[in-house]
Amino acid sequence: MKPNLIKTALIVGTGAIGALYGAMLSRAGVEVSTVVRSDFGVVTQHGFYIESYCFGDFVFRPTAVLQLPSEIETFPDVIFVCAKTHQSYVDLIQPAVGPHTAIVLLQNGLGIEPIYQSAFPNNPIIGGLAFVCVNRAAPGRIVHLDYGRLVLGLYPSGEHPIVQALVQCFAGVAVPVKESVDILRDRWRKLIWNAPFNPLSAILGQTTDQILAVPELEALSKAIMAEIVMIAASEGYVLDEDVIDRNIEDTKRMKPYKTSMLLDVEAGRPIERVTIVENVIMIATSHGIDAPNLKCINSILKGRFN
Amino acid sequence: MKPNLIKTALIVGTGAIGALYGAMLSRAGVEVSTVVRSDFGVVTQHGFYIESYCFGDFVFRPTAVLQLPSEIETFPDVIFVCAKTHQSYVDLIQPAVGPHTAIVLLQNGLGIEPIYQSAFPNNPIIGGLAFVCVNRAAPGRIVHLDYGRLVLGLYPSGEHPIVQALVQCFAGVAVPVKESVDILRDRWRKLIWNAPFNPLSAILGQTTDQILAVPELEALSKAIMAEIVMIAASEGYVLDEDVIDRNIEDTKRMKPYKTSMLLDVEAGRPIERVTIVENVIMIATSHGIDAPNLKCINSILKGRFN
Repeated sequence: MKPNLIKTALIVGTGAIGALYGAMLSRAGVEVSTVVRSDFGVVTQHGFYIESYCFGDFVFRPTAVLQLPSEIETFPDVIFVCAKTHQSYVDLIQPAVGPHTAIVLLQNGLGIEPIYQSAFPNNPIIGGLAFVCVNRAAPGRIVHLDYGRLVLGLYPSGEHPIVQALVQCFAGVAVPVKESVDILRDRWRKLIWNAPFNPLSAILGQTTDQILAVPELEALSKAIMAEIVMIAASEGYVLDEDVIDRNIEDTKRMKPYKTSMLLDVEAGRPIERVTIVENVIMIATSHGIDAPNLKCINSILKGRFN
Repeated sequence: MKPNLIKTALIVGTGAIGALYGAMLSRAGVEVSTVVRSDFGVVTQHGFYIESYCFGDFVFRPTAVLQLPSEIETFPDVIFVCAKTHQSYVDLIQPAVGPHTAIVLLQNGLGIEPIYQSAFPNNPIIGGLAFVCVNRAAPGRIVHLDYGRLVLGLYPSGEHPIVQALVQCFAGVAVPVKESVDILRDRWRKLIWNAPFNPLSAILGQTTDQILAVPELEALSKAIMAEIVMIAASEGYVLDEDVIDRNIEDTKRMKPYKTSMLLDVEAGRPIERVTIVENVIMIATSHGIDAPNLKCINSILKGRFN
């Protein structure tokens, strides 16, 4: 254990997820700066107000509130990219990436790490997944509703001391966290849920419970999941046999849930179509696998929201 | 030729299509009564005002304007059911069906005739297809924008003098019309267009040109058409090899077109999901054919608009 591996962190794309985990890192003693765009004024004045169902209500005052990563004075030990995946942040973070800065991509979907790895070949690239219900309720006000588990792992696989240090930071402040030595497998496992429910909720304008109330949509969700299972297997990631049924049952037990893609649609923001659907179709195609449901969904998303 | 075979006709579900073809039958000398629901007051007073790009602008005054088929005084020679297919009109027309009344189902999709055939086993059941752009622009005001061809054929196949008489009526007033001796084949051929473009336009809220402007949606349209071709073949209807490309090219040359399903969605009316998509999936299933794109589209339609 070397807690001093991480003294400083920079959060880029500080929406709900970035603010919550940035706040918890700060609670763990890390100096956390944040790049904030739309809420810059509010956060500069008041910090973030976090209302968490499990961590309590508290104010998170970043060490520095920046408008651009290039404004940071010294290279941080870790940069967390928590923004949506519809654009690359490679160019934006470049001025803040020092020779030893680790880059954590706390984002959904597949095909996220490669551009960062080729831009920063000597920096640890870390994939991250957040299993959390957290919303930005108002400028600078973050409401953490449920869950909160983090999975962090060196890309493309293996162990790294910085991952272990991050795990210790988070675990020390009671964030459920694990190191993955096979982060892509975890990305596939999360995609099992995201690939059906994010697109369908966006297309239908419905919450998860509304989707699963229609037997044809449950069947479609399972068909999409089955394609993900098949494509993952072709990449060498054989998922548990009951992964589909388990995801359906877990979702039925969840509170009615508005996916992030539906929230993006409602707010008129770009959606994470490419990393959640299109990149997966490309992987399928490279293995000669047909994925008609993913293609159908992707075409509708593209036609409707692009 | 026995023009006296058809002296009286009753149009049930007199929307744009029913009014247009009712008007042309009337021009051909048939006494045409209409069952009108929402526009009853206007049509009783003023008749239908038809603006046709090819038949001119004229007023069609039905012999009788009824609110229910049961109000008709003598059994008509022909009943045209022109309503949308989301409900059956068997019970409604029953009081108006005499021993010799022919029933024309001028409706889209598949699986339409069987309930009428079993309800009226001794009456000729005639399938009808209208290739026409026609809208109800206001109560009692019908705008015929383009096309206009009719295909009529005895169900399930073969010839019938009443079909020939109808063809002569329409042909006599310059309506492009043909008798089909294999009406189900024609239904399949029309479905090639309806199965992709009606659902996609409804889901996307877009016209045909907008759909075909997105390569992924053109590909999806073709994939849906390919499923229709395969399912039709399993029923014994082998369609022309170039039917898919021809439909795509024709649609690209068309004026931007709002499908009837999109119009239904915009007006908050029920959609023709069952006859255009779900009945086709049932036929596929009965032949052990997978139709993932139709199923995907059907599930989304059901979840979103049912």
